[in-house]
Amino acid sequence: MIGKRTLNIGILTIGDELTSGRVRDANAPWIAAQFYRLGWNISAILTVGDAAESIIRAIDSFSKQCHAVIVTGGLGPTPDDITTETIAKACNRPLIKNDLVLSSLKERTKTCGYRWTEGHQRQALFPEGTDVIPNPVGSAWGFSLNIRGCLFIVLPGVPEEAARMVTDHVIPLLKRIDPVPPPTVVSRTMKCFGIPESEIEEKIRDLIPENDEVLIGFYPRFPEVHLVLTARHAQERKAAENLRRVETTVSEILKPYLFGRDEETLEGVVGGLLTRQGLTLAVAESCTGGLIADRLTDVSGSSLYLERGVVTYSNASKIALLNVPEAILAEFGAVSEPTAKRMAEGIRKTAGVDLGLSTTGIAGPTGAVPGKPVGTVYIALAGSSGTVCRHCVFHRDRRKVKVAAAHTALMMLREYLTSLS
Amino acid sequence: MIGKRTLNIGILTIGDELTSGRVRDANAPWIAAQFYRLGWNISAILTVGDAAESIIRAIDSFSKQCHAVIVTGGLGPTPDDITTETIAKACNRPLIKNDLVLSSLKERTKTCGYRWTEGHQRQALFPEGTDVIPNPVGSAWGFSLNIRGCLFIVLPGVPEEAARMVTDHVIPLLKRIDPVPPPTVVSRTMKCFGIPESEIEEKIRDLIPENDEVLIGFYPRFPEVHLVLTARHAQERKAAENLRRVETTVSEILKPYLFGRDEETLEGVVGGLLTRQGLTLAVAESCTGGLIADRLTDVSGSSLYLERGVVTYSNASKIALLNVPEAILAEFGAVSEPTAKRMAEGIRKTAGVDLGLSTTGIAGPTGAVPGKPVGTVYIALAGSSGTVCRHCVFHRDRRKVKVAAAHTALMMLREYLTSLS
Repeated sequence: MIGKRTLNIGILTIGDELTSGRVRDANAPWIAAQFYRLGWNISAILTVGDAAESIIRAIDSFSKQCHAVIVTGGLGPTPDDITTETIAKACNRPLIKNDLVLSSLKERTKTCGYRWTEGHQRQALFPEGTDVIPNPVGSAWGFSLNIRGCLFIVLPGVPEEAARMVTDHVIPLLKRIDPVPPPTVVSRTMKCFGIPESEIEEKIRDLIPENDEVLIGFYPRFPEVHLVLTARHAQERKAAENLRRVETTVSEILKPYLFGRDEETLEGVVGGLLTRQGLTLAVAESCTGGLIADRLTDVSGSSLYLERGVVTYSNASKIALLNVPEAILAEFGAVSEPTAKRMAEGIRKTAGVDLGLSTTGIAGPTGAVPGKPVGTVYIALAGSSGTVCRHCVFHRDRRKVKVAAAHTALMMLREYLTSLS
Repeated sequence: MIGKRTLNIGILTIGDELTSGRVRDANAPWIAAQFYRLGWNISAILTVGDAAESIIRAIDSFSKQCHAVIVTGGLGPTPDDITTETIAKACNRPLIKNDLVLSSLKERTKTCGYRWTEGHQRQALFPEGTDVIPNPVGSAWGFSLNIRGCLFIVLPGVPEEAARMVTDHVIPLLKRIDPVPPPTVVSRTMKCFGIPESEIEEKIRDLIPENDEVLIGFYPRFPEVHLVLTARHAQERKAAENLRRVETTVSEILKPYLFGRDEETLEGVVGGLLTRQGLTLAVAESCTGGLIADRLTDVSGSSLYLERGVVTYSNASKIALLNVPEAILAEFGAVSEPTAKRMAEGIRKTAGVDLGLSTTGIAGPTGAVPGKPVGTVYIALAGSSGTVCRHCVFHRDRRKVKVAAAHTALMMLREYLTSLS
């Protein structure tokens, strides 16, 4: 766990569209991310349907464990919007008409050319003793009120309205009630490939107890594993220093597997290296079926270094586009080290580029032959100083064999380019 | 709302990555949607961090209000994975080694070529009295156990693992404990491309009130929109009949946009049509950068019809591999209808196939020229009776321009193949 937090905050999102899985809640993750950066602790995120009983139970439970609760949803003008009246019931207060909100709503409906309805009238009612929160983007005003020592801040469910009100009003409000100035939080994502989560953990396990100011989280994102280091400290300089210390040690231990940090992608890192070194590339793919080219071309500016790609699914295309000798295909088969090497050399030569990268393998689920199970892949890289080839077996389904093979190919390219600089 | 509900179910998702807003939970909305379709009620969805105290409080509160609770997350091999031991603590039971799980884990690490670590050892420990749930996709087994009359079903947090285990094990398990035989539920996913959700809704709005036995849900899955029809009725025959009636009407209204149903993919549908008609294909991609070939080769058996693909990012490769005349490139530019057509015709001829498919465009964010904004794409299809070309502008980011262009190309191919049969 991550040391001392200041405010303890709950998030309650309300709506049948959320509990039925029809809509994915956008508010809670966004609000949680804002608060986390400010050093506040999110103790729980709870979603309930538009049912008074569930809402009352949630208010009761949150008021016992949090300093503040952000509630979103159910402030609209239609009869299924019951949040305001349910909160009034939960804290046993009458609903009072707010004249400021009423006149603002009347003004707004006029400007927008809507008809004034009874529903709008309801949107000007709030539990007694509330502070209202203006909504600069939509019609539903928010409000805050103290229930049994816990500050409930109630916002509309429309994500852009909630986000704007959190930024403009809720964060300043919470900063005022925060008993302790929150610590600075700095974090770093370190991205690994080619090593399972369990082995990473074993390698860096000893670092964890002696660095309790820096939390290390493990997040597998197939085919990568991400490590997230989070440091928090009252002094910004100390937080950054602690983070840097752990990051340096982890970098040394995991060096062969680390390819990037934070928002970096493997294809972006490879593209950066190619650009800086002024090298050009062409790819010849069999089992990866275009995925390597697809990944490379996701990077803006990739036309500077990617001259072409070919997907040579048939033997005929391997011969025609890559000059792979028929004898090699006949003797060793399309899925073999000699074929992979000839493919890489062939694309390098025909495209007239510095580097040729190739894959050939059995993505499955069919196609296995004795000695070459499904998942067998040969990956070759041809450059000015010769050709290297790697043999892998990925025990995965078809899509994942493709993804793991494409990643391995890009990682080989990265290693080669790194060794040059 | 959809009538009488049976089981009352809670969902508990665990992870600091969720309460810090770093990752958006994919499990709860997906599980909620599955259960909703089966007529079960989701009473609450709760997310807490990796903290024993929060997990124990959640278990306590859920056990009082639910028949069953699905718990996801925290079953990995690293020390921040504390779900299993915390649940054991919450119900005061010792952790017992499960030999079946242990030997399965050992087998799996061996097959994948991983080293056996202490973390794996921990993954074979479960609270006394648990039933284990196999994980066909990853290493973390799940388990179920009864705590104070409420059935807790604990699954790993990796979405594809959780989803598979819900489908294969959790739903059958819950059906067995359901006190009321649920109505028969039949559902159909109808997949559309090329029309926004709001326009679909407008087109089929009138169907909704007169077909209240069939619920229609809208799920945008970029670049597709999925319609889910759900019919429930005490009699299976009636449910199927109602579903079929609405499906037929919707099919007629949305015909030009519908490409598949349920688990079908666009590339799978196209592959099926090519196979049945005995036609071969080659693709020449510029702005889609290999994505069309990647999509096509995700289908097992695609080597039967996909002869080759080329990613001709440079003008030189368009000339060398596709025989696009230099004069065409000079006069109209690489991003133009004449170039797209020549690319499709060129790949058709050089590969010696029945159909040639090409894309050329500006994926962005840079590269726009007067009259050709970012997102401009030309897509051409060459066949025995000539070449057709479509001009599109996708107002999206780089990746989404690629995805929308690849989808449009496959959809053109599908239309062409459908018109033949």
